[in-house]
Amino acid sequence: MDSKAAERGASENEKETPQEQEQEQVVNPWEVAAKEGGKIDYDKLIDKFGCQRLDPSLIDRVERLTSRRAHVFLRRGVFFAHRDFNDILDAYERGEKFYLYTGRGPSSEALHLGHLIPFMFTQYLQEAFKVPLVIQLTDDEKFLWKNLTVEESRRLARENAKDIIACGFDIRRTFIFSDFDYVGGAFYRNMVEISKRVTCNQVVGIFGFIGEDHIGKYSFPPVQAAPSFPSSFPHLFSGKDNLRCLIPCAIDQDPYFRMTRDVAPRIGYHKPALIESLFFPALQGETGKMSASDPNSAIYVTDSEKVIKNKINKYAFSGGQDSIEKHRQLGANLEVDIPIKYLSFFLEDDAELEHTKKEYGSGRMLTGEVKQRLIEVLTKLVERHRRARAAVTDEMVDAFMAVRPLPNMFN
Amino acid sequence: MDSKAAERGASENEKETPQEQEQEQVVNPWEVAAKEGGKIDYDKLIDKFGCQRLDPSLIDRVERLTSRRAHVFLRRGVFFAHRDFNDILDAYERGEKFYLYTGRGPSSEALHLGHLIPFMFTQYLQEAFKVPLVIQLTDDEKFLWKNLTVEESRRLARENAKDIIACGFDIRRTFIFSDFDYVGGAFYRNMVEISKRVTCNQVVGIFGFIGEDHIGKYSFPPVQAAPSFPSSFPHLFSGKDNLRCLIPCAIDQDPYFRMTRDVAPRIGYHKPALIESLFFPALQGETGKMSASDPNSAIYVTDSEKVIKNKINKYAFSGGQDSIEKHRQLGANLEVDIPIKYLSFFLEDDAELEHTKKEYGSGRMLTGEVKQRLIEVLTKLVERHRRARAAVTDEMVDAFMAVRPLPNMFN
Repeated sequence: MDSKAAERGASENEKETPQEQEQEQVVNPWEVAAKEGGKIDYDKLIDKFGCQRLDPSLIDRVERLTSRRAHVFLRRGVFFAHRDFNDILDAYERGEKFYLYTGRGPSSEALHLGHLIPFMFTQYLQEAFKVPLVIQLTDDEKFLWKNLTVEESRRLARENAKDIIACGFDIRRTFIFSDFDYVGGAFYRNMVEISKRVTCNQVVGIFGFIGEDHIGKYSFPPVQAAPSFPSSFPHLFSGKDNLRCLIPCAIDQDPYFRMTRDVAPRIGYHKPALIESLFFPALQGETGKMSASDPNSAIYVTDSEKVIKNKINKYAFSGGQDSIEKHRQLGANLEVDIPIKYLSFFLEDDAELEHTKKEYGSGRMLTGEVKQRLIEVLTKLVERHRRARAAVTDEMVDAFMAVRPLPNMFN
Repeated sequence: MDSKAAERGASENEKETPQEQEQEQVVNPWEVAAKEGGKIDYDKLIDKFGCQRLDPSLIDRVERLTSRRAHVFLRRGVFFAHRDFNDILDAYERGEKFYLYTGRGPSSEALHLGHLIPFMFTQYLQEAFKVPLVIQLTDDEKFLWKNLTVEESRRLARENAKDIIACGFDIRRTFIFSDFDYVGGAFYRNMVEISKRVTCNQVVGIFGFIGEDHIGKYSFPPVQAAPSFPSSFPHLFSGKDNLRCLIPCAIDQDPYFRMTRDVAPRIGYHKPALIESLFFPALQGETGKMSASDPNSAIYVTDSEKVIKNKINKYAFSGGQDSIEKHRQLGANLEVDIPIKYLSFFLEDDAELEHTKKEYGSGRMLTGEVKQRLIEVLTKLVERHRRARAAVTDEMVDAFMAVRPLPNMFN
């Protein structure tokens, strides 16, 4: 996986595809770009990809089945699309468990807030459904796409594993693995089974590879596909080839799993189900050009309170009006306001969020006040993450990454 | 590896390439076809591939360095071309050891004589130079190219390992591995290092892949390249990244190693050296269309004495004349005579071979007599192989294939 919600937020612009030149929106695992001057059109994306909107009845069903309130990312539409999530719930209702699969491409030392989104959500799913989880660290992908050595990619994988563990995963149900370390045996056999059923033309069509691209790129999609099949993890799921897989990820990863779902029944497995998130916007706004090389486009989990305060006050795009008089009169444009957008991701309290939107939208609340609240919320979140990460020892990383059975993963 | 000398002999015709339509000779790992009505032009092949002829001075040097007579396959020009074999000998003379790497694509249960050639020769090299050897069984390749299941490919790999072990390899210096079982860890990391440095256009140029080909084909060349680098075998060569590799193989495998040699210095390794053989001809002659689906085109190591006798008498293409009178007068055409060709591969006694060629070529000896001698030689060879193979237990296969250090491999 490249990225998920987060990195997609402060996304790098790795290559120009023909689509981009035509100024259409481009969404693939390595690039997310809105149409010139616009925002990502998620309805169009759902149409193009052929996935489904996650409607309120499904969220109700999740609440009923798990006997707890739905996660804020479900309630606020951060996870907004799916494929066969209803089938997962049907099976769960019949007493059949499933497993979760998510991942991260370890290309940077420090994660930003967007990177945390899929993991925060997956942690909720694991806790709510009490199911096992595999987390793939695609250090091979990052080595192939970036200017990194194998050793550096593996080191980043371990560093990122610490941030992931800090999100609160249950070690009795969680297996984290680095491709460079884990690929082989049953996992490799599934990679080859998948590779045999995907043509070069297909990956060119799905991912936009070109002839000058190295074959590492052509070889990689089956690596990300393989964890969708339980037999890739014989130490966990031996004899459970019928186990269903649910993949929480950002919607830019959909191409991998369209490919995987096409292959699945041809090699005797369920198609993996997906639950897909929006992209997390850059501080400069959803329309701006985002760049991983610009540290001011995102809040990192390593940012100090002072840095967070400065970034939000200085860079967070405001939908407020130019003057206080005008603002009191017209109110803020919530559609483009980044502080409100960020609060809708991270402010737990629904009533407070509604109140803030109302007050701010009507002009009774000023940008500075909203930003102040956001600074509090994010500082608290980042502080909590930093404390949790500091408590993650190398021994814990080893324990999460050990190839071992998980006897209590379904209990 | 698809095949080496042998399978190339009774070669399958897997796909039509543009070259073939132009009636030029085609030699790649999956197809060997002479120009319409002709024989393989090895000089042209050497030119096109850019390898060197193995000249008599190199063979003399091998004899001096190993203090023993050169193998019949060297003396008779069966192994006729090389890349940097002189560098291997230079290093050996300085006291630097090297390791051998060869392989087989396990696509069939029973091997034929041609399949044995690289292994008989490699066994000689191992014994003469006292060096370690890795043998790759490309069950993944056969799964990708043939209509086989993963399980069947793995089963064939083990069956073929028995035939290979029967060739007399030294278990203290030999590691045999199946890709489906061994790929992973350090080996996978080298695959990915290689993949990053080979473009799609390059493999299209080298191997003739097309857009409709599955990506398994595009992914495979690095799998065959990886064993050329000592770090792919940490249990054997840890800390010996500078160790040179010598690859005995049939010349149809040259494309893989041209690619590998191009990558080697860019990732910090010596280019692997090669010593390359001719193709083993089908019974019907070097010009005929050979087919793996025609069991009468080759002698299998499972053929009984009666079958061998019948195949040679009935199918071995003769350079003798149509009538005894004409034969006595003109003599046999040794250039096209298969019994003489086969004897030159398998009759150890140089004096007898020379005598036979002289007598037969002058017409004093008849085809029947030469065939009779060949039947004796091959029956003996096949009988010996069959006895040796019958003595190979599953435990021995496990022992050869165990991932283990070889502490005495250089002694």
